[in-house]
Amino acid sequence: MAAHSSSSARFDSSVYAARLARAAELTREAGLDALVVGTGPDLRYLTGVQADTFERLTALVVPASGAPSLVTARLELASLRDSAVSELGLAVRDWVDGEDPYALALDGLGPEARLAVSDALPALHLIPLAERVGPPVRLATAVLRELRMIKDDAELAELRTAGAAIDRVHARMGEWLRPGRTEAAVAADITAAILAEGHTEAAFVIVGSGPNGADPHHEQSNRLILAEDIVVIDIGGPVGVGYNSDCTRTYCFGEPAPDIAEAYAALERAQAASVAAAVPGATAESVDAAGRSVLAQAGLADYFIHRTGHGIGLSVHEEPYIVAGNTEVLRPGMVFSVEPGVYLPGRWGARIEDIVILTENGPEPVNKQPHGLTVL
Amino acid sequence: MAAHSSSSARFDSSVYAARLARAAELTREAGLDALVVGTGPDLRYLTGVQADTFERLTALVVPASGAPSLVTARLELASLRDSAVSELGLAVRDWVDGEDPYALALDGLGPEARLAVSDALPALHLIPLAERVGPPVRLATAVLRELRMIKDDAELAELRTAGAAIDRVHARMGEWLRPGRTEAAVAADITAAILAEGHTEAAFVIVGSGPNGADPHHEQSNRLILAEDIVVIDIGGPVGVGYNSDCTRTYCFGEPAPDIAEAYAALERAQAASVAAAVPGATAESVDAAGRSVLAQAGLADYFIHRTGHGIGLSVHEEPYIVAGNTEVLRPGMVFSVEPGVYLPGRWGARIEDIVILTENGPEPVNKQPHGLTVL
Repeated sequence: MAAHSSSSARFDSSVYAARLARAAELTREAGLDALVVGTGPDLRYLTGVQADTFERLTALVVPASGAPSLVTARLELASLRDSAVSELGLAVRDWVDGEDPYALALDGLGPEARLAVSDALPALHLIPLAERVGPPVRLATAVLRELRMIKDDAELAELRTAGAAIDRVHARMGEWLRPGRTEAAVAADITAAILAEGHTEAAFVIVGSGPNGADPHHEQSNRLILAEDIVVIDIGGPVGVGYNSDCTRTYCFGEPAPDIAEAYAALERAQAASVAAAVPGATAESVDAAGRSVLAQAGLADYFIHRTGHGIGLSVHEEPYIVAGNTEVLRPGMVFSVEPGVYLPGRWGARIEDIVILTENGPEPVNKQPHGLTVL
Repeated sequence: MAAHSSSSARFDSSVYAARLARAAELTREAGLDALVVGTGPDLRYLTGVQADTFERLTALVVPASGAPSLVTARLELASLRDSAVSELGLAVRDWVDGEDPYALALDGLGPEARLAVSDALPALHLIPLAERVGPPVRLATAVLRELRMIKDDAELAELRTAGAAIDRVHARMGEWLRPGRTEAAVAADITAAILAEGHTEAAFVIVGSGPNGADPHHEQSNRLILAEDIVVIDIGGPVGVGYNSDCTRTYCFGEPAPDIAEAYAALERAQAASVAAAVPGATAESVDAAGRSVLAQAGLADYFIHRTGHGIGLSVHEEPYIVAGNTEVLRPGMVFSVEPGVYLPGRWGARIEDIVILTENGPEPVNKQPHGLTVL
């Protein structure tokens, strides 16, 4: 039996009661009959329950009218003991192996129910649900994105705490990042520091040295770091009740070659331009375009091969995505990364990433470490 | 940016070539036009690619006829370098943020394509795919379960290696499991031993002492273990290319009370009865029933609150599930856990779990540690 991972770290239950009420309201407004929220960040957002089940359905059902309920396997009940479920007065409908949890989830909704499900609900559960209702099942993103995109003060406080924690790790980088060590050895030290500086987990530790830095998704390797390398360090993880940090800085060990310094300076201007463009009323794509055009002017357009950023909260990647084509209008309370990069295949890469809170008055980066190519 | 987790540990590419060919054959036989396999164990099974992406679609498309291809974000390409993808000659169709990966995945299949998707494909990707084709999308389980349920010799060898590795950890339990220590402290030592004995990861470490043992999904806590406790230890993780171990033994520190000894003896008989019932031609539910009836005769039916077992391989939980209602006929090459338990709420619990390989000649448990209530 694989372990069921759960955590009792959560906000006061009144926070979840308000979120559930708002979710039901948005469900009505969307013309839906019910939301079905499987395990994952949406369930944690709405109930504080951090469950990790796969083949046994655990799902929160939020009807447009009436009380929400939680469907779960009987053997998961004990793991809900420390959760907000009882304080919330959520009806728990449990099932045992051999019973049909989908019929249980749809109980009282009828064959014509218009359902929306959470992004993370696996096909294993979505398809049996979809087979039991007529109308096509939709994504609950349309409902939940509204809730999760706009962070309240408690969430913003958690995200600032997370930002300060990861800044402390970057500030200590000189303790571990040295030529002659492997990326993996440096990553191990960084991992320990991420935990020591207040994270509950080191969710990701990217140490991309030299040519490895030109792969945005390189993690770490046994490559020996060289004195002439440019090194991308992209790190983060959850703090407290589960809100995440995510911050990238780029390092070197001596004065960089002129061409590198020039490209990096353009990257710094690009990142600043995207941050400056992150104001209420701007679109997500305009924030992406602002930095991208700076890199284009520097002849680096082809070397910036990913979107500018992603929302962050209980998920490291969530709405709003700062990407071409996303016309989402940015509003106060949104929180996202601004992380342009330049990647020269086989040679070197650089990225500058801050998490930015959108306030009434404009962008508030939660990460404060200097943006320059840090010479260690 | 969250890290993209990948691993280059895999079988020779000829293994995946054969699996892909068989998958296409079963797709044809199932009357499907294509399989769409997202990241997860099915993708790893078919290609050796262990990717962990969420909002950016990475999917293997296996058409009933024609060559399979892999759809992935351009920035994931580098992470495929060490994979079998190039050796397999898989066409890689990459996309960049802002493009439509679903149209790319369905390219050449037509609006009436009959699709089946992997169990783990999240609603985030399944719903946009389903919107683009007429016929309802089905689960690929029907195709992939056949492949993944029947392990070949190389897989069986990996599972025996995993079983021996976790047996070595249970054999050392006396080094760490003592009254006066917390469950968490014991779990930390067990975690280190799981890695030291050859696992690449400690996937789960359940230390359920006293009343915590009565919760089948309890993980561990800061509870101090008492001299009179019964302690359930359920541990495992992947070895080598990713096949998992999973083994439970139950421990105590002195002669158990007569009522406990009696119930445990019934549990031991129940586990043996289920293992004995695991023969080619038997149904999965009959294996469950065999042990359950033994516990019922002992008046313990109400204290065995979960199914008897689950298949195991690249996933800790996979087909076949050993549960009432599953009429799957067991065949040589199937591998699953046999893990009945008794759980007396608030008092104590016990479970005995072995992974069993079904051979032509009957059941072959890969775990060899004694089944008795081990007195430390």
